[in-house]
Amino acid sequence: MEKPYVIGIDIGGTNTIFGIVDARGTILNSGSIKTGNYPEIEAYVTALAEGLQGIIQQVGGEEMIKGIGVGAPMGNYFSGCIEFAVNLPWKGIIPLAQLISDKLGGIPVAITNDANAAAMGEMAYGAARGLKDFIVIALGTGVGSGIVIGGNLVYGHDGFAGELGHVIMRRKNGRMCGCGRAGCLEAYTSATGVARTAKELLITRTDASLLRDLEPEKITSKDVYEAAIKGDKLSLEIFELTGEILGEAFADFIAFSSPEAIILFGGLTKAGDLLLNPIRRSMDEHVLSSYAGRIKLLVSQLNESDAAILGASALGWEAKGD
Amino acid sequence: MEKPYVIGIDIGGTNTIFGIVDARGTILNSGSIKTGNYPEIEAYVTALAEGLQGIIQQVGGEEMIKGIGVGAPMGNYFSGCIEFAVNLPWKGIIPLAQLISDKLGGIPVAITNDANAAAMGEMAYGAARGLKDFIVIALGTGVGSGIVIGGNLVYGHDGFAGELGHVIMRRKNGRMCGCGRAGCLEAYTSATGVARTAKELLITRTDASLLRDLEPEKITSKDVYEAAIKGDKLSLEIFELTGEILGEAFADFIAFSSPEAIILFGGLTKAGDLLLNPIRRSMDEHVLSSYAGRIKLLVSQLNESDAAILGASALGWEAKGD
Repeated sequence: MEKPYVIGIDIGGTNTIFGIVDARGTILNSGSIKTGNYPEIEAYVTALAEGLQGIIQQVGGEEMIKGIGVGAPMGNYFSGCIEFAVNLPWKGIIPLAQLISDKLGGIPVAITNDANAAAMGEMAYGAARGLKDFIVIALGTGVGSGIVIGGNLVYGHDGFAGELGHVIMRRKNGRMCGCGRAGCLEAYTSATGVARTAKELLITRTDASLLRDLEPEKITSKDVYEAAIKGDKLSLEIFELTGEILGEAFADFIAFSSPEAIILFGGLTKAGDLLLNPIRRSMDEHVLSSYAGRIKLLVSQLNESDAAILGASALGWEAKGD
Repeated sequence: MEKPYVIGIDIGGTNTIFGIVDARGTILNSGSIKTGNYPEIEAYVTALAEGLQGIIQQVGGEEMIKGIGVGAPMGNYFSGCIEFAVNLPWKGIIPLAQLISDKLGGIPVAITNDANAAAMGEMAYGAARGLKDFIVIALGTGVGSGIVIGGNLVYGHDGFAGELGHVIMRRKNGRMCGCGRAGCLEAYTSATGVARTAKELLITRTDASLLRDLEPEKITSKDVYEAAIKGDKLSLEIFELTGEILGEAFADFIAFSSPEAIILFGGLTKAGDLLLNPIRRSMDEHVLSSYAGRIKLLVSQLNESDAAILGASALGWEAKGD
C-alpha cells in the first residue's frame, strides 16, 4: 500500500510547527515546540521527535508516513543541512534531515528553505495546482522566492537558487539591506521595507497623514494598511511605491523564466488590491512587450496558518531515503 | 542501430548555414543558402531541403540522421514555429519544423532561438560539458541568453524564457533599447552597446583617444577593441564600463538560478581579459555574499564559425517525431 501521509515541519526563529498531511492537503493533526528553547541541536531534535511521535501514533505509526518535509531558513535541499542560518539558535552546518530521520525509524526527510516550501505547497495544494512554470514571491519580514520550472523546484547547482529578494532594484543611493548590500528588492518591498518607506515619507514630506499620529519608529506595514483602507493618501501612496518596485522586479523575473504565473504569498498580501493593483500596473508598464498580458498575478490560496506546514509537507511526498 | 548523425541549421537574416554533425561534435560536411533570396517560405524550404539532401546523401541517406535542430530568431521550441521574427523575410507564424520535416522523409525537427541553441551546443560539445546548471550569455549585435537548469534548457511556459538581454540595468535615464523600453542590458553590453558607449564618451569627455581619429558614427566594438589593445585609455574604460554592467547583471542572474557557471559567447568575447577582468571584478563586488567565489565565468569553447551549426545540431539529438 502507498503510505498515505506526509509530515510538514516549519522551523522559524521563534516556533517550530509541524503536522501530518494527507494527499488532499488536509492537516490531520499538528503540534509545535519553541525553537528558541533549545540552544543545543540534540535537545531540539529530541523534543521535536517526541512531538512528532505523538502525532504519528495518532495516525497509525511510522509505517503510515511516506516522508517528512522541512522548511527552514537556509535549508539546503542537496545537503539536507541548515547552513549558517542567522535567525536560528544553531550555528554552522546542521545535518538536520539526517538527525530527524535517525530519530524516526529512518523515515526519509527532505529540507529546503521556507520560500521553496511555500512554492511546493502552492503546487501541491494551492494556487499553482496544474502549473509547471511559476514563481512564488513571499512577502514577509524579508522577501523570499521559490521558482518552479517544468514542474521542478529550482535549487541551483548548490541548493541556493531563488534569492529574488536580493536582486538590485536601485543601483544608486539604494537602501541598505540586511545582506550588506544596497538597493535590494527586499529592502523596499518586505513588510519591513513598507514600514521603512512610511518612515522616509513622513520625514521628507509635509502632507497630513493618519500615520503621523503614530510613533515613527514603531510604524509597521499593518499600520500602513489600516491607514490606507481608511483612505489615507500617504499610506495609499506607500502601497503604490511598493507595487511599482515589485512590478519592475517581476518584469525582469519574467524575462528569465517566462512563468505562467507569479504567486504572492505572505503577510503583505493581506493588503489585497491596495498592493495588487499597483503591481499589475507596474508589471504591464515594464514587461517586455512579447510577454505583455500573458503572465498571471495570483495570490496564495493556502490558509496562512496552515501554509507553512502544508508547504513543507509537500516536500515530504518526494523525500527519498539514503 | 542508433542513427549516428544530426543536422544543425542556423537561420540568420542574411545566410542560412547547415551541417551534419556526429556525436563528438565534428561537422562532417556543411552548406549554406542566402536567406534573403527567398521572400516566400515555400521557396526557402525547397532550396534548404535541396541543400540538405545533397549533404545527407554524402553520409548515407536519411536513415543515418537522428534529428534536425534549427536555431532561428524567435524560434519557439514548443510550437516548432518561427513567430514574428523581425529580421527574417517571412512574416507572422511560420511552422518551420513541420515544413522541413515534411520535405525530408519525416526526420524529426526541433527549433529554438539562437541563444538557446548556443547553450545546447556548449552543453553537448563545449564549455558546459558535464554542467547541469549554467547560463550562456551571447554578446553579439544584441544580447541573447540560454539558461540551463538541471540539465534542461529553460523554455518557460510558452517557449520564450531567457530574454536576459532585456532585464533593466538602468532605471533612470536609461538608454533606449530596440525593444521600445529603456535601460536594457542589451543597450549597454551588446557590440552595438559598446559602440554607443564609445560615441557617448567621445562627446561628453575631452581626453585624447585613438577613437577620435575615426568617424564617430562608424565606430564599432572592434575599433574599440583595437584601440584598447594599443593601450588607449578611453577604450579600456569602455570595456570597464561594459564589464561593470555585465557583472551587475550576472549577480542578479545568480540570485535567480545559482548556476555553476556563466558562459560568454559571441563576437565581443574576442576582447578576452579586457572584458573578462572587469566582469569578474564587478560580479565579485555585486554578488550576494553567500554566492561569492562560487560561480565560474567561462568563455565558449566552440570555434565561432562552427558554433551556430553545432549549437543547432545539439537540439537534433533530442528532436522527436510526431
